[in-house]
Amino acid sequence: MGLVVQKYGGTSVGSVERIKKVAEKVAKTARAGHQCVVVVSAMGHTTDELVSLAQQISDHPSPREMDMLLSTGEQVSIALLTMALQEQGLAARSMTGWQAGIQTNAVHGKALVQHVDTSIIKKYLDQGEIVVVAGFQGISEQGEITTLGRGGSDTSAVVLAAALSADCCEIYTDVTGVFTADPRVVSQAQKLEEISYEEMVELARLGAGVLHPRSVECAMAHRMPLVVRSSFVDEPGTWVKEANRMETTLDVRGVAHDLEVACIKVNGLPKYNQSMPQLFQALAKAQINVDMIVQSERDESALDLVFSVDEADSPLALQILEEAKSTLGYESISCETGLAKVSAVGVGMMKQPGVAAKMFQTLSEAGIHIKLVSTSEIKISCVVEKEYAFEAVRQLHTAFGLDVKKEQAVTI
Amino acid sequence: MGLVVQKYGGTSVGSVERIKKVAEKVAKTARAGHQCVVVVSAMGHTTDELVSLAQQISDHPSPREMDMLLSTGEQVSIALLTMALQEQGLAARSMTGWQAGIQTNAVHGKALVQHVDTSIIKKYLDQGEIVVVAGFQGISEQGEITTLGRGGSDTSAVVLAAALSADCCEIYTDVTGVFTADPRVVSQAQKLEEISYEEMVELARLGAGVLHPRSVECAMAHRMPLVVRSSFVDEPGTWVKEANRMETTLDVRGVAHDLEVACIKVNGLPKYNQSMPQLFQALAKAQINVDMIVQSERDESALDLVFSVDEADSPLALQILEEAKSTLGYESISCETGLAKVSAVGVGMMKQPGVAAKMFQTLSEAGIHIKLVSTSEIKISCVVEKEYAFEAVRQLHTAFGLDVKKEQAVTI
Repeated sequence: MGLVVQKYGGTSVGSVERIKKVAEKVAKTARAGHQCVVVVSAMGHTTDELVSLAQQISDHPSPREMDMLLSTGEQVSIALLTMALQEQGLAARSMTGWQAGIQTNAVHGKALVQHVDTSIIKKYLDQGEIVVVAGFQGISEQGEITTLGRGGSDTSAVVLAAALSADCCEIYTDVTGVFTADPRVVSQAQKLEEISYEEMVELARLGAGVLHPRSVECAMAHRMPLVVRSSFVDEPGTWVKEANRMETTLDVRGVAHDLEVACIKVNGLPKYNQSMPQLFQALAKAQINVDMIVQSERDESALDLVFSVDEADSPLALQILEEAKSTLGYESISCETGLAKVSAVGVGMMKQPGVAAKMFQTLSEAGIHIKLVSTSEIKISCVVEKEYAFEAVRQLHTAFGLDVKKEQAVTI
Repeated sequence: MGLVVQKYGGTSVGSVERIKKVAEKVAKTARAGHQCVVVVSAMGHTTDELVSLAQQISDHPSPREMDMLLSTGEQVSIALLTMALQEQGLAARSMTGWQAGIQTNAVHGKALVQHVDTSIIKKYLDQGEIVVVAGFQGISEQGEITTLGRGGSDTSAVVLAAALSADCCEIYTDVTGVFTADPRVVSQAQKLEEISYEEMVELARLGAGVLHPRSVECAMAHRMPLVVRSSFVDEPGTWVKEANRMETTLDVRGVAHDLEVACIKVNGLPKYNQSMPQLFQALAKAQINVDMIVQSERDESALDLVFSVDEADSPLALQILEEAKSTLGYESISCETGLAKVSAVGVGMMKQPGVAAKMFQTLSEAGIHIKLVSTSEIKISCVVEKEYAFEAVRQLHTAFGLDVKKEQAVTI
């Protein structure tokens, strides 16, 4: 007998029928003798509908009121799922974020969990109840309702699992696990049996939508084993866990892509002053996330700089830089949109030379021009034109030996 | 400058457009220099939709989970109204029932307010903010979300007004005030400028839907002046306040009706035992509200008993009595449905003899048979066949001199 935290996303609880199916899944775990904490998201499009209501009232609704509004979505789900569990004859109890003791900081819309008071959940678990917790939400020290922002429900589940010292955290979603590439792009993409925290963080950051990087980072920090499984199909999912328990003979574990990339080029930035820090501080102040940065020397006094941002952020980034032109002292700027980032990820890469070479060669042979490159110990990312992104992913998937079943791949 | 509590019902906040209109109304009060606490219900049909979701999952959903579910409706409204107020450039803040310190007992679905901790609301009022509170909900000592049941948002408003020692409590609704009869039935029905708490309680109990009796009782207990006004039309409403401030020359202030009445007849109930208390205790245990009771002696050993109940409760009432037949020892029972109750209400009645006589005569002349009569110091109710109810209301409205304008009526 163990303690399991299960998380079901918005699609999994998208209708009354699906909520009943989730209740059956939870019941199975409970009847197998496990203590269960279930974290749920808002039903299907509820959040979008609430956001639309707010936008009809205000272009810039207050973050505090948005949290008040959006947190109702999960509250509806927990009540309905608890009713469905009770219909199955099980003792169950719903809890909002504040009732479940999920304490956050006061940053509305993207609050960070600071502490979980598990005494209340433990009390009910010990009484033999299934505890159904609203994901995505918490309470600040000031007693304000907060939401955790993107990936919030996954983070709620991992945080609760860690605080409760659960045996594992199961993330139920609309896909059957983590794949070597997006199966909609690469038909030969293979489901991974397991993947390390580090690789999963990179894949998630680089565009794999199955898990939010934040929840994986949180699981990694607490060494909490995660499993990603399907809510709809009963098959083993993908375990996300310690790298040292796994084979690392494979250099590349997966290929990810992100279709929303823009590159901004700053020409003739003066070399000998504070222009670089000033430039990136101005962007950071506007909450613009700069991803890849390439700097090259133009001459003795000036640099050329290229960096990538989310495509949606590019107009604001340009505006900020144009307004700061006299301060920064550059010659000209330009922006290229319609770009994508393709990345290869794998902890094995650090031990295997030649991965970068193979990546560049593969893209070159496919006639795909590389605009920007960025590497870390466990990934290589290339910015290419968006229209070639899927072809790039497919070519890299084949080149890195991911088209074949994992078991075979290991023997290569 | 004063402190005003305003309450807006579900119709008044039924759409984004209406919420904006409500914000304008609140803004007017705030700009006139008043401190404002605004209590809102769930938008339009939200509650019905949530109930329907629950019913698709369970025939008898747990009251605790129903409260968890339904309380989201008001939370959506407070967030949206607060955003709309902020759009008007006003400082405003939404608060759920638990944040506003509305402490209730633990009876889910029909909790009673026990205490309001006003310190938090007062703090924000003193900061110059408009406080928008979710109606219909509170928190139990155990930290559970509760709802107040029917008429809950009106009750929330009155309770907050009393706890905050507000100058008045304004109930905004979809009618322009309290009328001498339902204007949909009696075209000459007149809007009352003012009415006493006692009369309003009776009218509300007897079927006038504009206010829930519970909220009026609460206002009466705290001597809190209430005004019922339209959310949509800018005209003076009806003040509900102390009777002693008003003229009492009018014997009848209003005529109310209730179309959902059934009468149950118990024949030959033994006279000399505990059968009467046993009978009504059995019904009370099943939460069946017995309204009018008439008892008549059949012979030395037995009684005949007729009482009225809500039509919807009548099948359950009959079942309970049939199951208890051997204990109660009656001869037979029967039930008549399709009935209505028409009532005349007025504090002047106690001083004016002949009101009952005029009521009976009016109905008799209209050929309407009276099935059951019940009187109190300030009302007379008659049960009649439902098909004659509207005719009865119209005849009584005319007979009691209510068709003419109040100012003229006073001079009669």
